[in-house]
Amino acid sequence: MKRRFYSKIPLAQSVVALCEAKGVHHIVISPGSRNAPLIIGFTENPTMKCYSIVDERCAAFFALGIAQQIKKPVALVCTSGSALLNYYPAISEAFYSDIPLVVLSADRPIERIDIGDGQTIRQKNIFENHILYSANLYSEVVAETEIKDPKVRQKQREAQKHNEREINLALNKAIEKKGPVHINVPFYEPLYDRLEEPTVLPKNIPVEFPQHHISETLQDEMLTLWNTSKRKMILIGVNSPGVIEQRWIDHFANDPSVLVLTETTSNIHHDSHVNCIDQLITSLSEEEFEQLHPDILLTVGGMVVSKRVKAFLREYQPKAHWHIDEKKAFDTYFCLTEHIKLTPNNFFGTFLMETKNVNGDYKQSWLAIRDQRRERHQAYLEQIKFTDLKAFEVIFDHIPEGQMVQLSNSSTVRYAQLFSLKPSYRVFCNRGTSGIDGSTSTAIGAATVTNTPTTLISGDLSFFYDSNALWNDHIPANFKIILINNDGGGIFRILPGKEESVNFSTYFETTHGLSAEHLCAMFGFEYHKADTLNDTIASIQQLYKNDSKPQLLEIFTPRKENDSTLIDYFRCFV
Amino acid sequence: MKRRFYSKIPLAQSVVALCEAKGVHHIVISPGSRNAPLIIGFTENPTMKCYSIVDERCAAFFALGIAQQIKKPVALVCTSGSALLNYYPAISEAFYSDIPLVVLSADRPIERIDIGDGQTIRQKNIFENHILYSANLYSEVVAETEIKDPKVRQKQREAQKHNEREINLALNKAIEKKGPVHINVPFYEPLYDRLEEPTVLPKNIPVEFPQHHISETLQDEMLTLWNTSKRKMILIGVNSPGVIEQRWIDHFANDPSVLVLTETTSNIHHDSHVNCIDQLITSLSEEEFEQLHPDILLTVGGMVVSKRVKAFLREYQPKAHWHIDEKKAFDTYFCLTEHIKLTPNNFFGTFLMETKNVNGDYKQSWLAIRDQRRERHQAYLEQIKFTDLKAFEVIFDHIPEGQMVQLSNSSTVRYAQLFSLKPSYRVFCNRGTSGIDGSTSTAIGAATVTNTPTTLISGDLSFFYDSNALWNDHIPANFKIILINNDGGGIFRILPGKEESVNFSTYFETTHGLSAEHLCAMFGFEYHKADTLNDTIASIQQLYKNDSKPQLLEIFTPRKENDSTLIDYFRCFV
Repeated sequence: MKRRFYSKIPLAQSVVALCEAKGVHHIVISPGSRNAPLIIGFTENPTMKCYSIVDERCAAFFALGIAQQIKKPVALVCTSGSALLNYYPAISEAFYSDIPLVVLSADRPIERIDIGDGQTIRQKNIFENHILYSANLYSEVVAETEIKDPKVRQKQREAQKHNEREINLALNKAIEKKGPVHINVPFYEPLYDRLEEPTVLPKNIPVEFPQHHISETLQDEMLTLWNTSKRKMILIGVNSPGVIEQRWIDHFANDPSVLVLTETTSNIHHDSHVNCIDQLITSLSEEEFEQLHPDILLTVGGMVVSKRVKAFLREYQPKAHWHIDEKKAFDTYFCLTEHIKLTPNNFFGTFLMETKNVNGDYKQSWLAIRDQRRERHQAYLEQIKFTDLKAFEVIFDHIPEGQMVQLSNSSTVRYAQLFSLKPSYRVFCNRGTSGIDGSTSTAIGAATVTNTPTTLISGDLSFFYDSNALWNDHIPANFKIILINNDGGGIFRILPGKEESVNFSTYFETTHGLSAEHLCAMFGFEYHKADTLNDTIASIQQLYKNDSKPQLLEIFTPRKENDSTLIDYFRCFV
Repeated sequence: MKRRFYSKIPLAQSVVALCEAKGVHHIVISPGSRNAPLIIGFTENPTMKCYSIVDERCAAFFALGIAQQIKKPVALVCTSGSALLNYYPAISEAFYSDIPLVVLSADRPIERIDIGDGQTIRQKNIFENHILYSANLYSEVVAETEIKDPKVRQKQREAQKHNEREINLALNKAIEKKGPVHINVPFYEPLYDRLEEPTVLPKNIPVEFPQHHISETLQDEMLTLWNTSKRKMILIGVNSPGVIEQRWIDHFANDPSVLVLTETTSNIHHDSHVNCIDQLITSLSEEEFEQLHPDILLTVGGMVVSKRVKAFLREYQPKAHWHIDEKKAFDTYFCLTEHIKLTPNNFFGTFLMETKNVNGDYKQSWLAIRDQRRERHQAYLEQIKFTDLKAFEVIFDHIPEGQMVQLSNSSTVRYAQLFSLKPSYRVFCNRGTSGIDGSTSTAIGAATVTNTPTTLISGDLSFFYDSNALWNDHIPANFKIILINNDGGGIFRILPGKEESVNFSTYFETTHGLSAEHLCAMFGFEYHKADTLNDTIASIQQLYKNDSKPQLLEIFTPRKENDSTLIDYFRCFV
């Protein structure tokens, strides 16, 4: 059995022991000296799986990817100073995507802040705008046992109790509320001393999960409304695979008054759903919008990608908007009437037992339009040139069944919404802040802890932005990246008001002429490229034949033709 | 003459007009849509020099490098959401290094925050811990002229006045206090409309520079102490070239009671100075420390790199510590007695006129030790193998006169402190937070706006961390990078308590086996490499023969031998 070591510093022992007690076992470490007590504590503990990643921005998104999959807190460990600030993009994503992360930042003792010491900033409450809890700990000057003066010893014991309590509260918050917390851990030198036995045994305060329920009065009111409404819309945003039980999905399928709209990131599939929202919503007349306009909107899951459905529901507001989520409810459509603090399964379990189907043609008429749109989609795709849209069709046709598909922001996830993806895919995208800053790192983190073979689909700006993601020793050999390189932020081309100019291509589109080939050589990826339809098909097939090392396929699409193809696509439904 | 355009949105016009009025003319833009009104306003204004950089972390350090050189505020423009958070590492560096930056973040209107819209976070006061001013502006729903209702028009006019005032205050603060400010600019859609004439003409509130002076009583007290003290130490930290007039430097040279210690980043040179502090301080006996112990410590400039001099002065505290700086004084040695809020030139101009030389051997005896140490340094360097230390000797011997030398953190700047650099170098290093996160971007920003040919010397972790720095269309053709690649954070090897283990090399040293060759191919740098003394000398000479495109020389040093060579170096002075 591997011999175990502990940092000599009691505070470091407490942090590691409480992480262990609460089931935090994935630790993403960035190098440093001030964080040595934590590095020693975690890496010398055989229950911990540690990862070393130098660039803290990537480290944090990598941790986010792990936590996205295991749904338990993942810890980040960094040294003092600006290192910590590089975590912030991933922390804000975790905050809005309800993903548990525990940031453990080493710090200098409080009297060393703002006196001119190196790698020292004001770390206290640094993430205040986007954090569930900030624990600011005290550092011990010497171990309690070495203190002779009883008053000083008493003071130190109180500090230790404070620290234990704060660590408990922070970790419990991350577990209960599923989001990021920050524990700031100041250390005196010496930092590298180790022990074979711990000197403190901190108490684990158990997590208390609040028991929410829905009052009978409210449920009766909601049932009355539900059972008398002819037009009910269920809209499902970001949602992990398997979270909502299939029987509730099947239940809605039988009700003619219920139209279910699912986003690509919902991981929910049924023949009776509208699964390409933008296909349906585009080019509707005012009269049609009136007909689509629901009496009740029931929403489940996280962020919604489709701007069109948001604009529609803000203009055609339902009488009632209920959001079902244990933690939070955004008033996305400015008409939220109820936030039901239950899991979808709990809510449906009590509510749907008492609902009745309501007759009418709400669902049927919209499914008919959906089917017609699918036909037009097919016809349009058959006759277009090789552009982004065509590339995405081919990609989704050829990624094998059962893959985890990680999507970058934002053109990739928007294109993905236009296709009916295989239900066996597990789809993820950082939609909390919808940033382009960490999609690759997130995908790699996710791939590291899942048995599902993983493909990241990325645009070029996202990919090059997060190129340090590939500086990572943990990338699974069967990990694939499909990179659609249209030489810049092609998404800005489809915005109204743009004009063809040097300023446009420089400051909006940011053309760059880069390729991923050199990065692949640098970081040990096998590189493939394609710029025609047939090459793309052949290359994707090739991609999945070799799982001996990570593969990247770069698909070059014509920068100036992508936007007109997409604009015409939306026109084809008129 | 180039035709000029304005954003149709009055708020965007106000921001651009006030930047122009106050002399903010360098604008570093990252792509986005929400920031379109600012992009239009700046890029269509012929007085503005705009730069397009996709990765906001690099963009911010690039802007920092420009501002480091021109000593005027440089503006950063980004879209809403996590984009902004990527600025934070550079903002904290600017905060502690007193470099003026103006962050202009586009935002959604306030009622769109936390309702589930994409790329939307809580941007208000986001940099609170490290910012001189945060201006939170209001957005106009429509242009004032389009509002019929007089009450609504009045309200909008008040918002406009608030905005103008806040923009003025933020920009004035950046100029007066030389640091980062944040202006958060929310916009309604449409974002792309342009006008040929502005619709608002904001008033420029002039900057007021406070007039500090030193009271006669205080000056008399200080003079009495100065003129009766036999041991006075002047310690000069980070300081831009040319800031302190040579005559004051010469003045101290003649006073036997004044010992001047200069750091490499001080850009101050005189034969009578101790310019390699660590060489002198290392291996002193208690008795010698007592003799070095000053009565008065006078400090000038920013952060001090030498940990040894900090430890010395904290243990052997002077009776008086005066810090001379218009803006701030850190109590680095826990014995600060006076913060004189004057520029060094102003202070010396009044103070030194009335000082008298005090006889004694304080200076002379320490200069004798300095000279002896220089000899030992030379003798040691002559007989060592090719390691980091030897590589740095060769580098500083062969970088031509008159270069701007940008140093990365932290082993690079620490090694540089051991050598007597050519006085014609202009030396810079991000010592505000001493991060490894943006040294290359900073160097490139600085090189872009100076006529001085520039060399960046970097360690491998710093360099690979900031590899996106090279994704930049503005790199001067004569820009050079000398990369010392010792395969990881070699600096951790010299720390006490480390041991040779897999955990050490993985989590502290982070060995990686990477080379810069592929990045050079990707980003258009000419690549050279060396791993012997003779190759290194020849390669450096080669480097400066070709100014037709940026050059990078990668010097490979032996990972496991660097630390013992350095440890033995410090022992050679005993």
